This record gives sequence, structure tokens and C-alpha cells, in this order.
Amino acid sequence: MDIKEYLNDKRRQVEEALGDVMLPAEGPLSRHIEAMRYSLFAGGKRVRPVLCLAAAEALGHDPTPLLPVACALECIHTYSLIHDDLPAMDNDDLRRGKPTNHVVFGEAAAILAGDGLLTLAFDLMSDPALRSHISDTRRLRLIQVVARAAGPLGMVGGQALDVASEGKAVEFETLRTIHRCKTGALITASVQAGAIIGGADDSQYDALTRYGEAIGLAFQIVDDLLNVEGTTEELGKAAGSDADRAKATYPAFFGVEETRGKAREAVTAAETALAGFDQQAEPLRLLARYILTRKR
Amino acid sequence: MDIKEYLNDKRRQVEEALGDVMLPAEGPLSRHIEAMRYSLFAGGKRVRPVLCLAAAEALGHDPTPLLPVACALECIHTYSLIHDDLPAMDNDDLRRGKPTNHVVFGEAAAILAGDGLLTLAFDLMSDPALRSHISDTRRLRLIQVVARAAGPLGMVGGQALDVASEGKAVEFETLRTIHRCKTGALITASVQAGAIIGGADDSQYDALTRYGEAIGLAFQIVDDLLNVEGTTEELGKAAGSDADRAKATYPAFFGVEETRGKAREAVTAAETALAGFDQQAEPLRLLARYILTRKR
Repeated sequence: MDIKEYLNDKRRQVEEALGDVMLPAEGPLSRHIEAMRYSLFAGGKRVRPVLCLAAAEALGHDPTPLLPVACALECIHTYSLIHDDLPAMDNDDLRRGKPTNHVVFGEAAAILAGDGLLTLAFDLMSDPALRSHISDTRRLRLIQVVARAAGPLGMVGGQALDVASEGKAVEFETLRTIHRCKTGALITASVQAGAIIGGADDSQYDALTRYGEAIGLAFQIVDDLLNVEGTTEELGKAAGSDADRAKATYPAFFGVEETRGKAREAVTAAETALAGFDQQAEPLRLLARYILTRKR
Repeated sequence: MDIKEYLNDKRRQVEEALGDVMLPAEGPLSRHIEAMRYSLFAGGKRVRPVLCLAAAEALGHDPTPLLPVACALECIHTYSLIHDDLPAMDNDDLRRGKPTNHVVFGEAAAILAGDGLLTLAFDLMSDPALRSHISDTRRLRLIQVVARAAGPLGMVGGQALDVASEGKAVEFETLRTIHRCKTGALITASVQAGAIIGGADDSQYDALTRYGEAIGLAFQIVDDLLNVEGTTEELGKAAGSDADRAKATYPAFFGVEETRGKAREAVTAAETALAGFDQQAEPLRLLARYILTRKR
């Protein structure tokens, strides 16, 4: 199995589904919708929706009818990027090689585009059209898993702690909390959403959760490394910005070599978590290794 | 029945429930939670949760076990106020007689406090603890009704259009869209949420929706009037700010007298919508009239 081909296939599926679920930019609110569409269709890697689909497939379940759930995860991720890039936060002008949302639409419109995408995610997940493919009980569980991961004790809280910690000498424990909440929580929830869609039993759900936590950590460590080692052109966003802002990162704590080792360890932990799964979990295994080698 | 006493009772119930559901400001993310709590417990009127409870009661249903749903509506309302007040939006320093969130916590923290409250709302509504008091199917319906009302074609979209229209000569049609989306949608959804909790049949749901739309309109018209006629002290926020910003408002289109007449008409429409309801809908009727006479 070629992971790049798998990724391209899944991404295409997600792009198409996003096109289906996303509101058209028309009517009196068209400018607002255009602002949401601008960032949603800016060429993201679609890691979270792909993880969701792959986790459901690992359980032998075809997740195609539940693509709107995968889309909801991407809406939440995109909203978080729009808000992270704001002048009041990271003040980034470039994202995925394009001007950031607030550069194009202005700050107020960008804040609201993020708010709109976050809210739309819950609209998508609660849509009655999904009823014939997942029980209402499981769907409510899925919605809460995603809300918790994205919320005050997850992604938003992690970002708040990250912003508050900028330029300060932080303990490693704080960096771990930031990483676990800010990046790890939604990645883990994406895998958990796939697990719920796929009808995981308790032990499968726990294993997939451990997998999600491990790749969430690997993903963030590699992000830290890329910020040190990548070029702005490769990344599509400002390279070296963490050091410029004196942000706490893994390389700042451990140096580049030891950090690489920690990323490998996390990927191994992810593979170990999948020990009880058969061949259908192969994409998840390859995805874990792919995270280690990604360039952006 | 004394509406003020009823309102005070319900508000007390909502305050208590908010205290129960809101996260304590402790642990590594305490500052973020403190920022959310600051605005959530800043003495709001709790109109939306009270409407939700009163609508359920109008159908003979005790909504007490579903107070977390009412709390979710208040979380969404509070988030919208925090974001509206931001420097990039209305740039207000005062809200409910207190410094606004970004004045106290900074702009980044305020954006994230809003994001956190919005996300928490969906966590609350999807909580399994509510299972024994409302069917999963109705709960999913409720979540979607609220998400749609708060989302891109509702509250967020209305705020985006409002911001984009500032200082421009807008048609009355645009003002109506702003009012219907920005204020009306969540007020209507609060009544609809109560209707769903109360097990409304289709015709009851439609009637309560018409009621919600009518009081949503009345509420916004009175808001416009208060901004012209109230003092900053009475309002707890800047009076006269609409005119300062050349915002489109009902008084700007129709003058104060005609605007008052339109508010009365909307309240009459709300009462008419409740014609088929018995004595249990009395609080809803009184609430409609109360909106007309409120001072803040």
C-alpha cells in the first residue's frame, strides 16, 4: 500500500465532501461565507478528516456516508488556524502559502469566519441526514468528544496557555500541556470520532485513543522541528517564527537530535497501540510513519 | 402573576445551574477559564435561558433537569458579546457596567474566552447526563436548531453583515437581515429549544417559532431605542454608540415614535402567536410585554 496514494484518495474525497457541505457564497451574507470558504479551501493537508476515515476503516467500517463528520473536524481545525493567525495572537500573514484570512478580509471578518466555521461543525454533526448511518446515541457521544477536545480543556485552552506563555520561561510540563491540548486533543478526537463511527468496542476505543494521543504528540514535535529546519517556502508559513517569538518548543528544550528521537518514540508508541488490529489498520500505521517524514 | 418575580426566580435557577456546569478556574488552564467565567457571571439578564425554560413550561413540561441546555444558550450569548466588544469589532470598553473582557484579559485571551464558551455550549448540550430527560433524537434536533441559529446564516452571519455595513447607507432590507440574524435567530432558537424540550407537536412548534421571531424583533427594536434614549449608567454600556458609529437602526429609519409603534406591533404579534396556548403560557405572554418596557 502506498500511503501517498491513500492520502491523495482520501483528501480528494474530503475536498469533494467539503464542497458539498459548505454553504455557497451567495445572498446577503455572501461576504461572510466567502471568508469561511477562503480558508477552508486553501489547500489544507486534511490530516484530521483522513484520520477519522482511516480509524473507521480500521474497524472494517465504510465511513463514506459519514463524511460530513470528517468535514466538521476540518472546519474546527480551519477555524483554529484563522484565530491563531490573528494580529492579537500569532500575527501571521502567511498560511499554506497564501495571505491569512485577516489580511484578505480584515480582522473582524476573520474572527467571525472562525466563529462561523466552529458553529457550522456542530450543525454538520447534528444533521438528521446522518441518522440512517449512525445511532443517535453514538452521534451525541461523538459530538461531545469533539466539543471537549476543541473546548476550554482542549484546543482553545491550549492556545490560551500558549499565548500566555509566549516570551516566558516555561517548565517542560507546561509545554506538554500546551502540546497535548492545542494540537493533540483534536487529533486524538479525530481518531476517536472514527472509532465511534466504526462501532469500536471499549478496548478498541482505548487502543485508538492511545494511537491518537501518540500521533498527536508526534505531529506537534515534528511541527516544532519543521519550524526550526524548514524554509518558509516549504512550510507555506513563516519559518523560524517560534524562535523569533521565544516560544517554548521541543527543540528549545532538547536540541534537534534528541527531539527527533522523541518523535520516533511517539510514532513507535502509536504503532504499538495498534498491535491488536489487523490489516485494515495499515493506513493508520503508515500515517503514523508519514507524520515523521512530512515536510509541511 | 408578577413577571418580575417570575424572572427573578428563573434567573436565580439559571445562575445556580451556570455555577454547576461551568468549569472551576483551577489547574494549568485556570486563566482561560477565569476569562470565560468573568463574562458569564457578569450579571446578564439571562433572557435566552429564561425563554427556553418558559417555552417548555408553556407545554406543561418541567424543564429543570434540562437546565444545562438553558445554560448552553447563555454561553453562546456571552461568547457573542465578548467577540462583539473586541477592538476589531465594536471596540466597547463597558458591558453590564463592567470593563469588557478584552480590557481585563487582553485581546487574545478574550477571543479565546469566546471560542471556549461557544464550544462549551455544545459540550453541555451533548452531555449523556441529560439522556434520561430527553430522547437522543430530540436532543440532536435541538443541537442543530441552536447551531444553525448561532452559525453563518444566523447570529455570526448577522454580526458579519452588521460590521460590514457600519458607516454605509444600507437599505431597510439589510437592517432587517442584520436584526433577524444577529439578535433574532438565537432568541427564536431559545424558544424553539424549550419547545423541543417540552415535546411540542408541529403546530405548537410553529406557533412558538412565530412567538420567538416576534419577540426577537421586539427585543432588537427596543435595543435600538434604548441606545438612543437610555443613559450609559442605565444601560451598563455606552449609550448613543449606534449614532456615533452611524449604525443603521430602527430609529434612524423611522424616528423614535414610529419605532415605538413597531415594537408594540411585534409584541402583539408574539401574543397572537400564543393564542392556542393555555394559562401555562402566561409567563411567555408577560415576557413579551416586559421586553417593551425594559430599561436595559
